[in-house]
Amino acid sequence: MFLARIRHEGPDGIEPRIVATSNPDGPWVDVRTAERRRLERTGATSWAARRISRAIVPGSMTAALESGTAFMDATRTAIESRDGEHVQIDTLLTTPLDPCLYRDFMVFEEHFSFGYRWRGLEVPAVLYEFPVSYIGAIHGFIGPGEEVPWPHYTDHMDYELELGIVIGRGGRDLRPEEAEEHILGLTILNDFSARDIQAREMAAGLGPSKGKHFASGLGPWIATLEEIPASGLRMRSRINGEAWCDSSSSEMIWSIPEIVAWASAGEWLAPGTLLGSGTANGGSGIERGKKLNPGDVVELEIERLGVLRNPIGRPRSGWLPTPRKRRSPTDSIT
Amino acid sequence: MFLARIRHEGPDGIEPRIVATSNPDGPWVDVRTAERRRLERTGATSWAARRISRAIVPGSMTAALESGTAFMDATRTAIESRDGEHVQIDTLLTTPLDPCLYRDFMVFEEHFSFGYRWRGLEVPAVLYEFPVSYIGAIHGFIGPGEEVPWPHYTDHMDYELELGIVIGRGGRDLRPEEAEEHILGLTILNDFSARDIQAREMAAGLGPSKGKHFASGLGPWIATLEEIPASGLRMRSRINGEAWCDSSSSEMIWSIPEIVAWASAGEWLAPGTLLGSGTANGGSGIERGKKLNPGDVVELEIERLGVLRNPIGRPRSGWLPTPRKRRSPTDSIT
Repeated sequence: MFLARIRHEGPDGIEPRIVATSNPDGPWVDVRTAERRRLERTGATSWAARRISRAIVPGSMTAALESGTAFMDATRTAIESRDGEHVQIDTLLTTPLDPCLYRDFMVFEEHFSFGYRWRGLEVPAVLYEFPVSYIGAIHGFIGPGEEVPWPHYTDHMDYELELGIVIGRGGRDLRPEEAEEHILGLTILNDFSARDIQAREMAAGLGPSKGKHFASGLGPWIATLEEIPASGLRMRSRINGEAWCDSSSSEMIWSIPEIVAWASAGEWLAPGTLLGSGTANGGSGIERGKKLNPGDVVELEIERLGVLRNPIGRPRSGWLPTPRKRRSPTDSIT
Repeated sequence: MFLARIRHEGPDGIEPRIVATSNPDGPWVDVRTAERRRLERTGATSWAARRISRAIVPGSMTAALESGTAFMDATRTAIESRDGEHVQIDTLLTTPLDPCLYRDFMVFEEHFSFGYRWRGLEVPAVLYEFPVSYIGAIHGFIGPGEEVPWPHYTDHMDYELELGIVIGRGGRDLRPEEAEEHILGLTILNDFSARDIQAREMAAGLGPSKGKHFASGLGPWIATLEEIPASGLRMRSRINGEAWCDSSSSEMIWSIPEIVAWASAGEWLAPGTLLGSGTANGGSGIERGKKLNPGDVVELEIERLGVLRNPIGRPRSGWLPTPRKRRSPTDSIT
């Protein structure tokens, strides 16, 4: 099964609606419409059917996933009954998920080894001891076709080709063998990166921050796990139509179940969480000595997950902090 | 004005309710009750008054702040009319905020200088160039009196005394002089830390992660900015009643408006975001060469913001990843 969200313009403005299909080439059905019609067939009044279908199939994918099996049952029934409105998704797609939390791992060895060499560092042992991650911003997600805003604090824009893992069911302290039933499915993630400020801020040791938060691409759809071949997925990028990367998800040194299990260790892994795999081997510009320019079009393609295409915006101006004076080292202990 | 949330047990289970006061010693009023009564006085039926007051004053503080002035107007009116239910908050308090995003800064120079020396590192120049931050987990927040879960992957538990800044109104690319009107107020934040795993994972350069995500303390209430003296706030900690820290928020090297402005640079700063100041100078156990033990009680006190008290729980067992083999350096470029 494949899930996506489209923008629908109505009297209350633009609202996202969840659509689903058994075949991404179509037809796609509007899940709330199908659920409303199903409720009416059970004797619900049209007002009650609207109210209940809106509660079970909200516009927020995270809110939908929070309802446990109710939403997934409605989605499956919508696809099977072929009773929803058939919708043309092409120009309407938005992010398939509005994540409640976004945690990005780094599990492709060739990519991360390059990253440390690029910064003149040894590859730390801890990357082989457990899957290391950081948490990113959730308010900068953009969907298919949306322009990447170019923040005023960078001159070096880059992209990162990643696999996105969407958590469907919450859990805590999961073991890897329990992880699969907590995963809704996979999608394409573009972890856009401002390399200059990223390098500066990472010198503080708190990880990537403003170098990442301005935008992340997501979509075009989520494919549930039964749609994914066990052998891994081919992962490719093209910039302005030119092939920059041709890699595979089979090169991950930590498995998806291990990533999910470690994300849940000692903390609540909420429905609607997005986990990133980290960049595929070769899946960034720095690995080819290249930068992105305003107006470039970045296309990521992952087998079964479609193509995620985003144009790069133009630089703007904005406020920058005034540097502070460092106290002399002898002052720094009181 | 002071805002908090209490746990209310009803036929639908335990739900949080927002309470407010002009004096934290009381009385506190239930804001939704006051708003419902106000609506009834305007002619709303009791059903409609319930429906509307629930929409304007939801249980989620983030959802309440998302409604713009509607929620703050209802809160002000509730305090002034003295018409809400008066509630005893002492044993009922929960986190005053369910943050949509939590971003932690590091702006106390003596504390961060200690941290780098502790790890055998120089203090990086970037800390004086802009306020550096990382994003933390949002699902591990605990309120006053709640026990800190001790995750299975640590033997070294510590606390951190921080000022929490609550964003009330959303914004993007704010300048420092615009920041204040986007701040709802301040609260106490305890950034509990598992130092052993934190040190291991920070070697990867992605910042603190599992060493922080298991729990953060928040509360007991939020004080709006007009309650805060311009000269800064006294910040103290006590462990099992013993004073460990006596510091001040006036020692921040970046101001609260600068922190808020930089958090909004190039990205959407959403209502309900929590910004942490980073640890006050002397506001952690490592700075005193001390660790926390199961059963210890950590009390943080900040002037005007009350006392946040949390007992430390007991270690549990859980899954740990099996280390991977590193490829030889000559294999690592294909």
